[in-house]
Amino acid sequence: MSDNTASSTATDPQTAIDSQSDRRRDDLDDRIFAHSAGDDQDGVPFVGAGPGNPRLLTVAGKELLEAADLVVHAGSLVNSDLLDAYCGHADLVNSVGKDLEELVPLMRDAYEEGRQVVRLHSGDPAIYGAALEQMDALEHEGVPTYIVPGVTSAFAASATMRTQLTLNEVSNHVAFTRPQGKTLSEDEDHISEFISMGDVTTCLYLGTHAVRDTMDRLLADGHDPETPVAVIYHASWPDEDVLIGSIDDIADRVEEAGYRASALVVIGDAVTGAGYERSYLYGDWANRGANSTD
Amino acid sequence: MSDNTASSTATDPQTAIDSQSDRRRDDLDDRIFAHSAGDDQDGVPFVGAGPGNPRLLTVAGKELLEAADLVVHAGSLVNSDLLDAYCGHADLVNSVGKDLEELVPLMRDAYEEGRQVVRLHSGDPAIYGAALEQMDALEHEGVPTYIVPGVTSAFAASATMRTQLTLNEVSNHVAFTRPQGKTLSEDEDHISEFISMGDVTTCLYLGTHAVRDTMDRLLADGHDPETPVAVIYHASWPDEDVLIGSIDDIADRVEEAGYRASALVVIGDAVTGAGYERSYLYGDWANRGANSTD
Repeated sequence: MSDNTASSTATDPQTAIDSQSDRRRDDLDDRIFAHSAGDDQDGVPFVGAGPGNPRLLTVAGKELLEAADLVVHAGSLVNSDLLDAYCGHADLVNSVGKDLEELVPLMRDAYEEGRQVVRLHSGDPAIYGAALEQMDALEHEGVPTYIVPGVTSAFAASATMRTQLTLNEVSNHVAFTRPQGKTLSEDEDHISEFISMGDVTTCLYLGTHAVRDTMDRLLADGHDPETPVAVIYHASWPDEDVLIGSIDDIADRVEEAGYRASALVVIGDAVTGAGYERSYLYGDWANRGANSTD
Repeated sequence: MSDNTASSTATDPQTAIDSQSDRRRDDLDDRIFAHSAGDDQDGVPFVGAGPGNPRLLTVAGKELLEAADLVVHAGSLVNSDLLDAYCGHADLVNSVGKDLEELVPLMRDAYEEGRQVVRLHSGDPAIYGAALEQMDALEHEGVPTYIVPGVTSAFAASATMRTQLTLNEVSNHVAFTRPQGKTLSEDEDHISEFISMGDVTTCLYLGTHAVRDTMDRLLADGHDPETPVAVIYHASWPDEDVLIGSIDDIADRVEEAGYRASALVVIGDAVTGAGYERSYLYGDWANRGANSTD
């Protein structure tokens, strides 16, 4: 089936991507200025499914799924409860194991037949989503596309932990990052640099399998072994699990639990939600000195 | 009114926060393990309103607002269309200009009277939200609280720009950060460090007023003046506006438009969505060498 479908692609996906990429450099897409995020638009929406719980999908995403004839979803990365809740009447296609050569003509043909097509990515499509290559390949085939943002798993993780990723006098910044490995070189791994800054909450995506290697590197770089680390498996899913430890011991806990994927790793003092100062954001800055006795 | 309300607070909010903070250090909250994000929970939900467009609120957030008797919202930071859409039957209180001494007893008293109270923050409460200090002060008063995550404005901005914040071979990481100023020292400003890494998309929150100072510092630090910068005012709102330029000229564009607040600044090559390589995430890595001619 893969070969037959692929042969109906007019353009090689990488050629299509490069062509769209050149166009982007020369000339901004008018739709950037004609639409705002969340608007109804023509074409195939690339919808962020959110972290997993169907209630953490956006209203726009829910409406698009409920109206869809075909939903191409990210397989085990999307909670099946969400598909059950909103996609009862749609044809479902699991994208895992399918490449652009198969997915692009499948979505294009359905769109050209007048079917409502939704591409469903986990979390938010802007974060480690690989949405744009599919969008560019579809656009090159004459199929308009757009993005509907979603809640990323780091936000579900912080909600579960009842903390914020930024906390006054504890963490001023947040990094979404992933560890070195097959697709990221040692030079491109900035985890140790983020932690060295001292006031960054560092969220590791796609790094469950690499927790021990990452923590070993952080120890070798001289970071405080007691630095808090949380691992949130399947944030917001029914089988959500939270492991809390430190750079020194979190790898043991992850191995004991047996997780190799689908967890978010959060490093930094914000994990505990302790030790922060009230921000006075809701107060009147100008009067603080006069009215406050703190 | 502020004085009368404040006098009904049993505990000074900073004392309450410190007490909750000590408790956090000693003992993890059982609810972290009993609930997952998106669950119905007892107490006052701190709901992320998302970036602005009512359709970018979560399903859970919509249901909570529709059932609310009292909604304490972040004033002009929340799109009034969203309040109109979902809060028709609720009492609305604008938190801007009110401090913890006023907000905490107001929410506590309503909750104790059996009213459904929702605290509505813009974006996601974990990002520059100042939610936790209110939650800790309420918990100390015996009012349970929890967080319902939301879509942050950076995700609406990237959806509007039809790009991803991470892009294969262009940007491997994302930083959510804010510039030095009244509440952040020069040492705590890491914008230049993030950009020096070369593969980080840097998203500035709370920095619209500081665009010129920030860009001047980046130029002084020797960063490429042609580095793409986008400024997205009111991402996903009806009056959303997108300014696209570079480190060299974006400050002129922002001043010309007259924006001093409520915009997100995105720095890095991912802004253009150009020049990336397909990720093969949907392909079969093991077979790539054999099947691909790229």
